[in-house]
Amino acid sequence: MRILGIDPGSRVTGYGVIDVDLKMHQGRDTIQSYGVIELDSKQNFHRRIFELGQCLNQILEKFRPQHVVIEGIFLGKNADSAFKLGHARGVCLYQAQLMDAQVFEYATRVVKKAVAGTGAATKEDVEMALRRMLGVGPLRPLDASDALAMAVYHGQQMRWNVALQQQNQRQDRGQL
Amino acid sequence: MRILGIDPGSRVTGYGVIDVDLKMHQGRDTIQSYGVIELDSKQNFHRRIFELGQCLNQILEKFRPQHVVIEGIFLGKNADSAFKLGHARGVCLYQAQLMDAQVFEYATRVVKKAVAGTGAATKEDVEMALRRMLGVGPLRPLDASDALAMAVYHGQQMRWNVALQQQNQRQDRGQL
Repeated sequence: MRILGIDPGSRVTGYGVIDVDLKMHQGRDTIQSYGVIELDSKQNFHRRIFELGQCLNQILEKFRPQHVVIEGIFLGKNADSAFKLGHARGVCLYQAQLMDAQVFEYATRVVKKAVAGTGAATKEDVEMALRRMLGVGPLRPLDASDALAMAVYHGQQMRWNVALQQQNQRQDRGQL
Repeated sequence: MRILGIDPGSRVTGYGVIDVDLKMHQGRDTIQSYGVIELDSKQNFHRRIFELGQCLNQILEKFRPQHVVIEGIFLGKNADSAFKLGHARGVCLYQAQLMDAQVFEYATRVVKKAVAGTGAATKEDVEMALRRMLGVGPLRPLDASDALAMAVYHGQQMRWNVALQQQNQRQDRGQL
């Protein structure tokens, strides 16, 4: 299963693409690509939102993920930044569905806790934990490793789902 | 010149398409279409944002406006509603630019003041003023008349630009 994680922003959007083998209970995921879409802050906001959509479209066309995972609920209190982030997230959600991907979202704290042990982990902590999990070298920029963490977390959720189904099937057979 | 006005929302988005004759100093604009994109509130937010993008794409494909005018700066203080509105506005801005339209934005108060005489005008006041200006019957739903008001206001701005240019040209000729 191919998963694209997105950490959206109106200036920098991180992304990470991994392949997950759902049959392996504790398999190591394979990174296909990761990076950031960095928008020119000299350009006006309208243009940046458009270019974010276009760049994401290219990534989706190239990697064709079945699942897209996006950073969840906004917890800040600043209406202006929530408004701007909303624009970025809106085009991400639009593009993912345009390519028929299923969309999932998780709160950052949940992903951080699962990957790095605490919901208050820094971006550096998350990156270090990911390197160990994936057996790779530095994952920079850190916005990209945040996006990868989201994809890895989702892959693990999917694995658990498969394992749970198999267990249920075994129990059903046992009861027959 | 064809202008599409959009009053975006994560549940109801109003739109209005008008044709403006820029050569006429005080010409009457012609309505081509208006209405609302109403999204099923039973559907999840991701899906609604996608469908808004798809519906808007159809409107843009059909009417091919040169200019798209969208409601401007968000003045509320609620981060959650700013976040949701941001998503809706993001896909509107994306679709408009995808069709090579030029995008403009005006604050609602400015449009209300110009159309209905006061920035505190109600939606009903705006609709009544528009009916007089355009010489038409009831313009419902009111979200659609808000979108039309934005388009009409922008058309007037464009007319003034043309008139100003012509005046400058006359002055230049006078000085020669």
